Amino acid sequence: MYGNFPSRLCPEPAAGEVNGRSLWRFARPIMSLMSTELIEESIPDVGPRSVGLVSTQSAILFAPPHELTLANSRRLGPITVAYETYGTLSPQRDNAIFVCHALTGDAHAAGYRSKEDLAARKAGWWDGFIGPGKGLDTDKYFVICANALGGCQGTTGPSSICPETGEPWGPDFPVIQIPDIVDVHAELVRSLGIERLLAVVGGSLGGMQVLEWAARYPERLAAAVVLASCPRMSAQGIAFNAVGRSAIFNDPNFNDGRYYRDSGPRAGLALARMVAHITYLSEESIERKFGRKLQDVEALAYDLIKETEFQVESYLNYQGRRFVDRFDANSYLYLTKAMDYYDLAQSYGSIENAFAASQARFLFVSYDSDWLYPTRQSKEVVGALISAGKHVSFIELHSAKGHDTFLIEVEQLEALARPFLERTLEVLRRPAAS
Amino acid sequence: MYGNFPSRLCPEPAAGEVNGRSLWRFARPIMSLMSTELIEESIPDVGPRSVGLVSTQSAILFAPPHELTLANSRRLGPITVAYETYGTLSPQRDNAIFVCHALTGDAHAAGYRSKEDLAARKAGWWDGFIGPGKGLDTDKYFVICANALGGCQGTTGPSSICPETGEPWGPDFPVIQIPDIVDVHAELVRSLGIERLLAVVGGSLGGMQVLEWAARYPERLAAAVVLASCPRMSAQGIAFNAVGRSAIFNDPNFNDGRYYRDSGPRAGLALARMVAHITYLSEESIERKFGRKLQDVEALAYDLIKETEFQVESYLNYQGRRFVDRFDANSYLYLTKAMDYYDLAQSYGSIENAFAASQARFLFVSYDSDWLYPTRQSKEVVGALISAGKHVSFIELHSAKGHDTFLIEVEQLEALARPFLERTLEVLRRPAAS
Repeated sequence: MYGNFPSRLCPEPAAGEVNGRSLWRFARPIMSLMSTELIEESIPDVGPRSVGLVSTQSAILFAPPHELTLANSRRLGPITVAYETYGTLSPQRDNAIFVCHALTGDAHAAGYRSKEDLAARKAGWWDGFIGPGKGLDTDKYFVICANALGGCQGTTGPSSICPETGEPWGPDFPVIQIPDIVDVHAELVRSLGIERLLAVVGGSLGGMQVLEWAARYPERLAAAVVLASCPRMSAQGIAFNAVGRSAIFNDPNFNDGRYYRDSGPRAGLALARMVAHITYLSEESIERKFGRKLQDVEALAYDLIKETEFQVESYLNYQGRRFVDRFDANSYLYLTKAMDYYDLAQSYGSIENAFAASQARFLFVSYDSDWLYPTRQSKEVVGALISAGKHVSFIELHSAKGHDTFLIEVEQLEALARPFLERTLEVLRRPAAS
Repeated sequence: MYGNFPSRLCPEPAAGEVNGRSLWRFARPIMSLMSTELIEESIPDVGPRSVGLVSTQSAILFAPPHELTLANSRRLGPITVAYETYGTLSPQRDNAIFVCHALTGDAHAAGYRSKEDLAARKAGWWDGFIGPGKGLDTDKYFVICANALGGCQGTTGPSSICPETGEPWGPDFPVIQIPDIVDVHAELVRSLGIERLLAVVGGSLGGMQVLEWAARYPERLAAAVVLASCPRMSAQGIAFNAVGRSAIFNDPNFNDGRYYRDSGPRAGLALARMVAHITYLSEESIERKFGRKLQDVEALAYDLIKETEFQVESYLNYQGRRFVDRFDANSYLYLTKAMDYYDLAQSYGSIENAFAASQARFLFVSYDSDWLYPTRQSKEVVGALISAGKHVSFIELHSAKGHDTFLIEVEQLEALARPFLERTLEVLRRPAAS
């Protein structure tokens, strides 16, 4: 079941590695190396609140003749899925939580992949929220995170090798949609022997996946936690994604997506990241952090070509360059397009219809400074769920940090998620009324 | 005094043309040809409320040995300035209003440059606000608008021919700042025989120029009207400008700015425009106008390469392409950098200091849906002016249309500007107390 599917750009971990929870205590003073790409980064835990060393595993699913039929009717298989797990599955198999990552996330949500990463404090992308005693408490729950279909961090995507040609798929990779991503993850969860999840949790693009999980597999999750997300991309969201894609298309090294023998559209992908990054932050947070501060100089150079004169320019350039080292431009195209195509109400006739069969308990969180996925979008789903008589909780949290808040300010999320999940488990374990 | 200064990219009008106010009445049904780049466009007047046919004139200023000393101490001259005027200068020469254009505007603010433009309804960029009986009433006032230094629509800029080399300046053009733009326009106004302006009016980058006019030439304007602007660029504003510049730098046809023999960085400039254009609109206005509507198709293609599937994508692509036909990439670099460098308080010690000598009456207008130049930025200047005991009026107007509102919703501006200007003229003409 578990194995390796080679991909030129994104080498996957060797098969058979064991995912341990070896807590590794660390006594040296905490170093301030940047480990994630957040404008404000919390220093990852290394003590008893860390899941410690972890390894990414991979599963091969949908092997022929059992290929996955995609939303656009094409068939795809085998599909490799990279995933990590934290915590222990209960004997009843009722404490599993599936985490859906956002656009550029991966399976590595918590802990450290190596001692080197630990020394450098390079933790998983949601390390502050997943661990012993944290929001997703790994002392109580079995947490799973998997890379999305179409991605480039271990799960099959356009940079993977096409079995028929022996070459990377590139633009021949089928167009995927959010339901396809969810289908692959649902099959992964089933393959792990879990029939029903305690919860599916995710923010941004991850939140769209949570909505689709609840709509598509109503019997397979007891709770849905949707953070800073929406039931369909706004025109402004599509516009920013389109600009990012244009930046990639414009790059002379894009070569219609067949760039895997060369350096690829690095400048274009970096530019796409720069513009997206601005939209993840609030105007206030950029102003507070950077204002008009200069980078490495005392006074303005009044030089046209020096593009990193202001700190905010330098920061964006850095984010763009760093992103290119870990992400594939074709994956960026495929996944942003999947976001743009997503429209829950259109797919199911209405939002109420989408959740007609769902018995899940819903928790929605939005942020008042998130202008990319404003509160209005969460409220639309919440309103439809209330109308349909579902169990739904909703809160708009205050934050100065914009869309990325769900990744950064985990304390307030923890205060909401812990009782919500505890109550869900309680309801789930309550004996059915006789 | 008036003459021609050849520029390869931006041919200037022949010298000696007369600026007429030949009202041209038009009886055919109004055509809906797009004439400006606004998301919602008002149909330009052709009747008695139009300034009619106009022609752009040009002045040559700062001819050696009287070159302009720029803010960065370099000297530049001669400088050609393209400008238009509407209305009649009073015998007392006290009814002149100078209009400062925004980033990509030009001297052609009102009326029609030719009968062909008239037939096609291609009016000046602020035609709704300038004309007989309009906000800037050309029956009462003499309105002047000039292209900015560093621009590419008739005023000397990087696409102009450098007298020493006989080639376009390109990246050898000196770095310019907002005070330089204002100095050139102040000299133009003086050359027209006007010692004191009734008002200087402008929005966005034009508003920064108005602030600088009031700070730099306190005795030369009786009123300052600042729309949707700020005393310094925010970090978010710098970030978006930096992304646009990166798009131009990334274009392989940029060639370090020496592209005038070739097609130039068309794709990069179009991309810069696309991202900027999103910031000029409110999220609500894009959603209302486009939502998820498709372009030329009935259903989603689920095709990765088709970049104009949603109407909003098609619209942005169209805006980008059209912009490239009328604007020079180097001018875009120079003028966005001038915006980023602008910092009124830093230049003068404080905002109060900047206006210490000013006796002007100030009117500030901001828009509640403008997220690029939010109301907070206008309030900062207004607060400083009140503290300094100046005459200042301020209003935040409601609009769904974002930053570009000042160009579109001219009726509410008219209701404010007309009495404000009338009162200013009244005060100006009142005999001094004996």
